[in-house]
Amino acid sequence: MRTITFLPSYRKIDVDLGTTILDAAQRAGLNINVVCGGQGKCGKCIVYVQSGKTEFDRQKHSRFFTEEELVKGACLACATRMLGDLLVFIPESTLIQEQKILIEGLETEIELHPSVRKYYVELEPPTLTNPSPDLSRLLWGIQKSGGPVAEKMYAPLEMLREIPAMLRHSDWKVTGTIALVPGGYRLIDLQENDTSKRLYGAAIDLGSTTVVVYLWDLVAGNVVGIASNYNKQISCGEDILARVNFARKNGLSKLQALAAESINTALTTASDTAGIDRDDIYEVVVAGNTVMTHMLLGIDPAYIIAEPYVPVVRRALSVAAKRLGIACNPNGGVFAFPAVSDFIGGDIIADILSCGMSEREEVSLLIDIGTNFEVVLGNREWMFSCAGAAGPALEGGEVLFGMRANPGAIDKITIDPETLKPVFSTINGIKPRGMTGSGLIDLLAELLVTCVIDRNGRINTGINNPRIRKATHFSEFVVVWAQDTGIGKDIVITENDIKNLIMSKASVHAACVTLMKEAGQSRHDIATIYFAGAFGNYLNIKNATTIGLIPEIPYDHIKNIGNGAVTGANIALINRRKRKTLDEIALKIAYIELNAEPAFMDEYTSSTFLPHTDLSLFPQVQKMLDACRLLRG
Amino acid sequence: MRTITFLPSYRKIDVDLGTTILDAAQRAGLNINVVCGGQGKCGKCIVYVQSGKTEFDRQKHSRFFTEEELVKGACLACATRMLGDLLVFIPESTLIQEQKILIEGLETEIELHPSVRKYYVELEPPTLTNPSPDLSRLLWGIQKSGGPVAEKMYAPLEMLREIPAMLRHSDWKVTGTIALVPGGYRLIDLQENDTSKRLYGAAIDLGSTTVVVYLWDLVAGNVVGIASNYNKQISCGEDILARVNFARKNGLSKLQALAAESINTALTTASDTAGIDRDDIYEVVVAGNTVMTHMLLGIDPAYIIAEPYVPVVRRALSVAAKRLGIACNPNGGVFAFPAVSDFIGGDIIADILSCGMSEREEVSLLIDIGTNFEVVLGNREWMFSCAGAAGPALEGGEVLFGMRANPGAIDKITIDPETLKPVFSTINGIKPRGMTGSGLIDLLAELLVTCVIDRNGRINTGINNPRIRKATHFSEFVVVWAQDTGIGKDIVITENDIKNLIMSKASVHAACVTLMKEAGQSRHDIATIYFAGAFGNYLNIKNATTIGLIPEIPYDHIKNIGNGAVTGANIALINRRKRKTLDEIALKIAYIELNAEPAFMDEYTSSTFLPHTDLSLFPQVQKMLDACRLLRG
Repeated sequence: MRTITFLPSYRKIDVDLGTTILDAAQRAGLNINVVCGGQGKCGKCIVYVQSGKTEFDRQKHSRFFTEEELVKGACLACATRMLGDLLVFIPESTLIQEQKILIEGLETEIELHPSVRKYYVELEPPTLTNPSPDLSRLLWGIQKSGGPVAEKMYAPLEMLREIPAMLRHSDWKVTGTIALVPGGYRLIDLQENDTSKRLYGAAIDLGSTTVVVYLWDLVAGNVVGIASNYNKQISCGEDILARVNFARKNGLSKLQALAAESINTALTTASDTAGIDRDDIYEVVVAGNTVMTHMLLGIDPAYIIAEPYVPVVRRALSVAAKRLGIACNPNGGVFAFPAVSDFIGGDIIADILSCGMSEREEVSLLIDIGTNFEVVLGNREWMFSCAGAAGPALEGGEVLFGMRANPGAIDKITIDPETLKPVFSTINGIKPRGMTGSGLIDLLAELLVTCVIDRNGRINTGINNPRIRKATHFSEFVVVWAQDTGIGKDIVITENDIKNLIMSKASVHAACVTLMKEAGQSRHDIATIYFAGAFGNYLNIKNATTIGLIPEIPYDHIKNIGNGAVTGANIALINRRKRKTLDEIALKIAYIELNAEPAFMDEYTSSTFLPHTDLSLFPQVQKMLDACRLLRG
Repeated sequence: MRTITFLPSYRKIDVDLGTTILDAAQRAGLNINVVCGGQGKCGKCIVYVQSGKTEFDRQKHSRFFTEEELVKGACLACATRMLGDLLVFIPESTLIQEQKILIEGLETEIELHPSVRKYYVELEPPTLTNPSPDLSRLLWGIQKSGGPVAEKMYAPLEMLREIPAMLRHSDWKVTGTIALVPGGYRLIDLQENDTSKRLYGAAIDLGSTTVVVYLWDLVAGNVVGIASNYNKQISCGEDILARVNFARKNGLSKLQALAAESINTALTTASDTAGIDRDDIYEVVVAGNTVMTHMLLGIDPAYIIAEPYVPVVRRALSVAAKRLGIACNPNGGVFAFPAVSDFIGGDIIADILSCGMSEREEVSLLIDIGTNFEVVLGNREWMFSCAGAAGPALEGGEVLFGMRANPGAIDKITIDPETLKPVFSTINGIKPRGMTGSGLIDLLAELLVTCVIDRNGRINTGINNPRIRKATHFSEFVVVWAQDTGIGKDIVITENDIKNLIMSKASVHAACVTLMKEAGQSRHDIATIYFAGAFGNYLNIKNATTIGLIPEIPYDHIKNIGNGAVTGANIALINRRKRKTLDEIALKIAYIELNAEPAFMDEYTSSTFLPHTDLSLFPQVQKMLDACRLLRG
C-alpha cells in the first residue's frame, strides 16, 4: 500500500502500488473529467505530480504536453501509475464541476445531481490477455468515465441478456444509463454509440383536478417543456371521495389507468413541444396527495377515507414506469413522494421541500388552502402538521356571488373609506361576474377596516350609503351595481356570506394556533409563513392577516411559494440528495388529529371574530380598527 | 437517552426513555424469543431487571409470574418500559438459539441462517389513536417477531397492492416472507394465518450431464428430499460445445427452457416424495459451470467457448424464479453462484466453499477431474486456478477396455507381486466388462510397483508370465482372461493405453505444479489435497500419488469431497453469511492460462514419467520402486 495525497484538498487515500492516479482519485471521491474513459486519448485528466515516483506512457503524454510541462510534473491521471507515495495537484479545470440550477419559485440554487445518469464509453475489445467478462468491462468503463464504483453497479437480467450482442454490434462503443437504487446503482439501459446527451426527466404535480408536468434536460440542467391538463379521473367522480367510492364499486384499475393517462397526455404535450423522444425520459417524479398517489400506484385507497383513516403506505416508493403504464423509457422509473397521513400527502412534503423549512433552524408555518387545508409548523428539528375542511367559502363556494378563479371573477378589491366605492380587478379584465376567494378576503378585510362590518361580521346598517341595504333574509353590501356587471344584476355580499367566510377562516386560524400550542410557540417565534397552492397566488397577505386567517406576523415575512408540489418534485428530480431526505422529513412530522384536540374547538370559537376575540394578537389590525372607529366616530 | 446493559454479555445500548426492553434488546442485536410479536401474550420474552426503574403492565405480568418472581425482577421484555438506566439479565432460554446443521460431505456444522425467512404476526387493527399505515404496521409486527428492523424492509408494488385486503381478510393474522436483498430486506410473500413452518429451499448442482437437487426444510434445518435426473439439454448436443453451437444456430431459448425443465423435473420428484407443495419453495440456489449458468439465465454463452473466452458475467446473480421458468413459489428467487472465468465456474466456487480452503490459513490444493480438469491452489489470502483438457483416458476413454462407471466396470484392482494375478471388484459385482478410470489408475500403479512396467510406461516383456504378451501392435498385460469376463474376450491393457493414461495424468500434475510455482509453494507447503466430483469417489488416493497424478503429500492429507458443487449449494442455501463470501472468493482467485505459461509445457514433459522425472519429489513412491526392483532383481 502507498499513500497518495491530493492537493489542494489534501484528501488522502491508500492504494496498491501500480494504481493509476485516476483510479486513486476516483476512489478518493474526486470527480476527474475523463471523456475517453481513461484511455489516454482525450487529454482531459491533467494533474501535476509534485513529489513521488511514477511510471507513465511517454508516447501518450507527448501528444498533450511539452517537455517543459512534463518537467513541471504534468501528466495524464489515467496513464500514470504510482511507484511510491505521491503528492498530486489537481487543477480546478480537471475536476467535473457540480452544476447549479435555479428552479422556478426558489430563491436559492439547487445542484444538478439527478438519480439517473448516462455514460458514453469506448471499450477495448477483449483479448486473450484481458478476457474479463463483458459486464465487468462495461462497468469498469463506466467507472472510468466518472460513474459509480464498478462493484456498486449491477445489471438486471434483461440487461445481461442484451449486453454481449450490443457491445459487439456497436464495436464496443455504448452509452449506459445508471440509476441510483437502494444498495447500489442499476444499469437500466444500454444504447449503441453516444447518446449521453439525451437524458430527460419529468417532475409532476398530480392533483385531483389538474396534472402539471415539468420536463427537464438532466444533462444541461434546464426545463425544456411545461404542460398541464385536467386529471381524467374526473369522469369517475368530481372529488376524491366520489372517486374512491367509484373504485370500491368498480375496482381500481380504471382510476389507475386514468391517472397514468393524465400524466401521459401532459408528458406527450411537453415532450412534443420540446421535440424530444419520450424514450429519452428516464425518470418521472410524482408529488400528489395520499389518495392520488395510492391510485396512481394501483394501491387500494379505500381505507384512507374512512375511520380510522389508514393509508397502505406512506414511504417514498420507486417503481418501474411500465408497471404503472407511464409512457417514458420502458426501463425508466417512477418516484412517488412519501406521505405523513391520510391528509398530509406527498404534495405537502413537496411544499416543505420547496420552502426549505425542514432545513432551517428558524420556525416556519406552511399553509396550503383548498376545499381542505393543511398546515405544517416546524423547523429542521421537529414538525407538527394537521389538516381540516376549510369549507368551500374561501374558494368562492357557499357565497352568493362566489365563483372559481375564472374570467370575470373579481380577485382584488379595495374600498374607498369615504364613498365606500369598491375599486377592483377581474381575471382577464372583463366585466365582473362574481368574486373569487382572494377577492372575498379583500372585501371582508376592507369592509372591516372601513367599519362597514363589525368584528362579529354584522353589517352596520346605520351607515347612510346606498350600497348598504337590508334584503329579504340578510343585510347586504352592494359590491358592483347591475349595469356594471357581466351578469345584469347587483353583485352583493350578504351577512350570511360573511358568516360562512368567517367560519372558514376560523378553521384555518384555529389549526395554526393548535399546532403552535402543541409546539409551545407563539406568533413571535414564527420567522416565516408560507402559502402554498393556487389559493396563495392571488391572496393579499395583509388582508389575510386583517381578517385573522393567519396569525399576525410582519407582512414581509409572509411568502407565497406558488405550486410547491411541482417545485418540490422539480427539486427531487434534479437532486438525489434532496430526494433522500424526504422519508426523513415525512417521519419527522407528527400529525395532530384536530377533532381529537379540545384546544382546537376552543380556538375555533375564539377565531370566529374578525380578526379574533383577543385583539392583542393582531396589533397591526387593532391600529387599523382604531383608525376606522375614529373615522366613523 | 438512557443506557441499558444486558447480562451476561454486557452489551450496552442507548435508547429513549420509555423504550421497551424488547425493543432495546433487538436494537442491541440480541435475538429474543417473541412468539406473539411482543403483545405480552406468549410469555416467552422473560428477562430479569437487576437494577433500574421500569414501568410494566401488572395484569399481563400476573399471568406469567408469581409475586416472588416479580420481586426478583422477572418481567416480560415486551411489556416493560425503561424509566432510567437499566441492568437486565437475559436467561439463555429467552434467546433464540442459532441452529447448527451438519451437511452431508462436511465435517463441521453450518449455522441455519437462510436468506429467506417467514414471520407469523398477529397485528392490532388500526384505530383513530393508532392509524399507522398498513405497511408500517405489518413491518413493525415482523420486526417485533424477530425479523429485521422495519426501516430496512420494503415491499414491492405487487405486495403493496395485496396488503390491505389480505390484512383485513385474515383478521390481521398473516405470515410474511422476507428475503435478504442488496440494500435491505424485501417482503416477497404474504399469506393468511400461520404458514411460518412451510418454508423450503432447493440446492442444485446443474451439471451438463446430470442435475442434482437437495430440498431443504429451512425452518427445521434438514434435507427433506433428494432427486436427480439427466440434463435434458442433451437433446441439443452431447457436450457443451455442441450445445453452444446449437444455441448459435437456433437461439438460446430452447436450451434455457430445457435447463429450467431439468431442474423442475428433479424439484418435482423431490417435493412430491417429501409431500410438500412447490409453492412453499422460496429459494433455489444453483451451482453450475460458466456455460450452464449462462444458459439457465438465458445469457448468451457463445463468447465463452471461443477465443478470447469471455463470459458475459461472473458475479453471483439473484433473479426472480419466474423469469427463468423455475417452478417454485411465484415470488421465489434463484441464486446463481459466481464464476472466475470460462473454465472456473460456479461449480468450482461451490467446491471451494464446501472444502473450506478459502477460510483457512493453511494452503490447500483442490482438483476436479472429468474430461476437463480444474485445479485451485490457495488459502484465505490468495488463490490461483487453472483448467485444461485431461483427455478422456482418466474417464476410461481412449483406452482399449476403458469404460464409464457402469455395471461391470472394474473400479479397484490390486496385483499379486509374485503371480501378477489381479484381484479386483466391479461395479454392481457382475462379471467384468472393462475398466473405469479409478480401476485404470489402480492398474497403472500396481503394474509400476510390481515392475511390470518401467517409469516410461513400457511393459517389461522379459518377465515370464502368461499375462505379459506381445500383440500385433503393442505389448499388453492381460487383466482378466476371457472366460472370467462378461464380454467373452481377454480384458487387457496395452502400452498404448498406458501412454494415453500417462499423458492425461501428466497434464493434471503439470497443472498442479504450475500453480505451485506461480504461488512459490512446494509440496511441503500443501496441507491438504481435495478431490471433487464423481471421479474422486472411487479413486485410490495412494495409487493416484504412485502414478504421479498429484504431488506427493502424506496420504491421510488427501481427501475426497464428493459432489462439492451440491454441497457448496447446500451451504449457500442454508447460510447467507457464507453465501455473501462467494463473490469475494471468486474475485480473489487468479486464473492462470496454462497455454500461455512456458512453465506448464516444461512441467508436462517432466510429468510424462511414472511418477515423474524427479523421483525425489515422490519419496514414498521411490521406496516402493526400490522394493520392487529388489523383487525383480
